[in-house]
Amino acid sequence: MQTDNLLKQVSFIKEIDKLKYIQRKTKLFNSDRHENDAEHSWHLAMMTIVLAEHSDKPIDVLKVLKMVLIHDIVEIDAGDTFIYDSTKSHTNTEEELIAAKRIFGLLPSEQAEELTSIWEEFEEGNTDEAKFAKSMDRFEPLLQNTSNNGGTWTEFNVPYKKVYDKKKAIKNGSSAVWNYAENLINESVDKGILIKKTN
Amino acid sequence: MQTDNLLKQVSFIKEIDKLKYIQRKTKLFNSDRHENDAEHSWHLAMMTIVLAEHSDKPIDVLKVLKMVLIHDIVEIDAGDTFIYDSTKSHTNTEEELIAAKRIFGLLPSEQAEELTSIWEEFEEGNTDEAKFAKSMDRFEPLLQNTSNNGGTWTEFNVPYKKVYDKKKAIKNGSSAVWNYAENLINESVDKGILIKKTN
Repeated sequence: MQTDNLLKQVSFIKEIDKLKYIQRKTKLFNSDRHENDAEHSWHLAMMTIVLAEHSDKPIDVLKVLKMVLIHDIVEIDAGDTFIYDSTKSHTNTEEELIAAKRIFGLLPSEQAEELTSIWEEFEEGNTDEAKFAKSMDRFEPLLQNTSNNGGTWTEFNVPYKKVYDKKKAIKNGSSAVWNYAENLINESVDKGILIKKTN
Repeated sequence: MQTDNLLKQVSFIKEIDKLKYIQRKTKLFNSDRHENDAEHSWHLAMMTIVLAEHSDKPIDVLKVLKMVLIHDIVEIDAGDTFIYDSTKSHTNTEEELIAAKRIFGLLPSEQAEELTSIWEEFEEGNTDEAKFAKSMDRFEPLLQNTSNNGGTWTEFNVPYKKVYDKKKAIKNGSSAVWNYAENLINESVDKGILIKKTN
């Protein structure tokens, strides 16, 4: 039984290596090099460790770490969806559900169920853990874009309101991080790297 | 106080982005592309999540996750040391201690102390958590090299005995993972991708 589990776990470990090839739109800090999903997930995990104290609600840090470490694994099959692409749905697409079933399904059934359920919890975003995980997921590219002279905002002409509306989710996890983030967004407008349209 | 902490944490979050540029000798699965330290750390965290049940001793999974996520951060300053390079020390070099002090020192003091102490615990390798974390750190490149027709073993002419001696550390964390790993090493000799010298 233990060996049978181990064989399944090793096949999962090999499969998820592919996350290192999934390229995001955002770029590394002060850089022209695109970030990939594995690096992004590692960074969110580190942010969770150091920022957990700013969560407005008590959170199970181990669960948040699992969430951020696995949250993009479905993109191995479904690909990365740019957050400001309004032509595509961003939560629980049919394609992502099939991907979750296939990839987590490589694991022993109990683990497959646990990780699928943690991924769904993240996608739904209702629990305190999911809210905090999502706030990390919104905060990292904000830091990156401001370090990159506007980054994807400039590259894809994303206006202030769209950015503000997406980033507002940070507030659901941490009002302290949101205060910082909101200032950063306003400063970006002042600097001209984020455009506030009047209509 | 909270804001002061947050500013320090953000400067740490920006600084550790550099881990994504630290290239390892090992390559991704079935690939010619080198792995970087951030990707590697993410992969070890995922392995910890799915393989923790094979630990011979009860372990604090949250602590192991923190260990594997931060274990290579000192390499931002100290660089990656190839495990089979016998001209260099692999634990707690003076350079790495200075790096730990500088990089973790960006954080609020309590967090700096916590992460430095977890990193030292990993380096010393005496606790059950450190033993399991180190077994993950040895297991990942074994899986990569066997998927890459010998990988760094072939590239740098590393003989069986050296590989076996380094990989043996897996046993300290998990006898189940070690059984699997030992078979993989022996199969590699049979396949001719790992050379058993007679002298």
